[in-house]
Amino acid sequence: MTANKALDEITLSTESIFEGKVISLQVDTVQLPNGNTSKREIVRHPGAVAVLAIHNDRMLVVEQYRQALGRTEVEIPAGKLEKGEQPEEAIKRELAEETGYRCDQVTLLNSFYTSPGFADEIIHLYLAENLEAGELNPDDDEFLEVTEITLEEAYEQIRDGRISDAKTIMAVQAWHLIKVTGKPSL
Amino acid sequence: MTANKALDEITLSTESIFEGKVISLQVDTVQLPNGNTSKREIVRHPGAVAVLAIHNDRMLVVEQYRQALGRTEVEIPAGKLEKGEQPEEAIKRELAEETGYRCDQVTLLNSFYTSPGFADEIIHLYLAENLEAGELNPDDDEFLEVTEITLEEAYEQIRDGRISDAKTIMAVQAWHLIKVTGKPSL
Repeated sequence: MTANKALDEITLSTESIFEGKVISLQVDTVQLPNGNTSKREIVRHPGAVAVLAIHNDRMLVVEQYRQALGRTEVEIPAGKLEKGEQPEEAIKRELAEETGYRCDQVTLLNSFYTSPGFADEIIHLYLAENLEAGELNPDDDEFLEVTEITLEEAYEQIRDGRISDAKTIMAVQAWHLIKVTGKPSL
Repeated sequence: MTANKALDEITLSTESIFEGKVISLQVDTVQLPNGNTSKREIVRHPGAVAVLAIHNDRMLVVEQYRQALGRTEVEIPAGKLEKGEQPEEAIKRELAEETGYRCDQVTLLNSFYTSPGFADEIIHLYLAENLEAGELNPDDDEFLEVTEITLEEAYEQIRDGRISDAKTIMAVQAWHLIKVTGKPSL
């Protein structure tokens, strides 16, 4: 299957609205396939990494406060890509910082866009097994609590809403599929 | 498991940066658990619905241009919630508008936040079976191409990057899990 070029929009102009620490915002004026124009509000993001880290048949999760939601959430370890950093190095760094575990070898399960309707954020999701205990070293403005949960506990936390973000649910499903099919499906 | 209140941040002030057609942007100043302050860049979004729609053991997908990515992408049918609209009504409307299929009964698989680090967008993901053919009726600024693909084709398109967004990959995994376990897992 090849991309359908007849659906393409043409960028007529870009207005920069905001440049932040993490994201920037622009409004593009585009020409639609029928010749009309429309506005597209676009958030730019540096990209991120996340990891399905399995230790003794348990998944490592971190509870942290999310200002966008006004509450804490349980998520897999994750973090933004730093400038010039390769995703594989970034995920080893984040795993060590957030959980204290080290992992020499990680496997890329998938890379996905979180919200292609308005943002270019991409998350590279890795699988890490054979973890080695190390030391916690979170960022200065990062406060979190690490726990290890079974697949059943993960589904329980999805049902009760403690786990409610896309990357973590995707990691739980990937783990479940690995268990029932014997290999990563993605 | 209860939420850990010791991780909570306190909002000290909110600066509104932008109010758009789809999203708005604010910068919050927060007090961290250690007493320091930090800035949080937050995108507000009205929320969205998406559907794993199965017809003759094939999943309905739509190809559409995504300005944030600068290319077309293959995704499950989805759309923003309109003001005051219930998610279940919204997904029936979107399914009909985008694919021409109608479905009287849909099942909520899950609701998830796409990017809790910077956005409050939530997507309600439904399962729709027993589809009835109807008429296409896309939005004025929406141009898309509908196809129906097998699970194997869906994984192929994930591998070659045509499918690359969180909600669609999650739907493919959910479909795979339904096939191997006989029931929705979420």
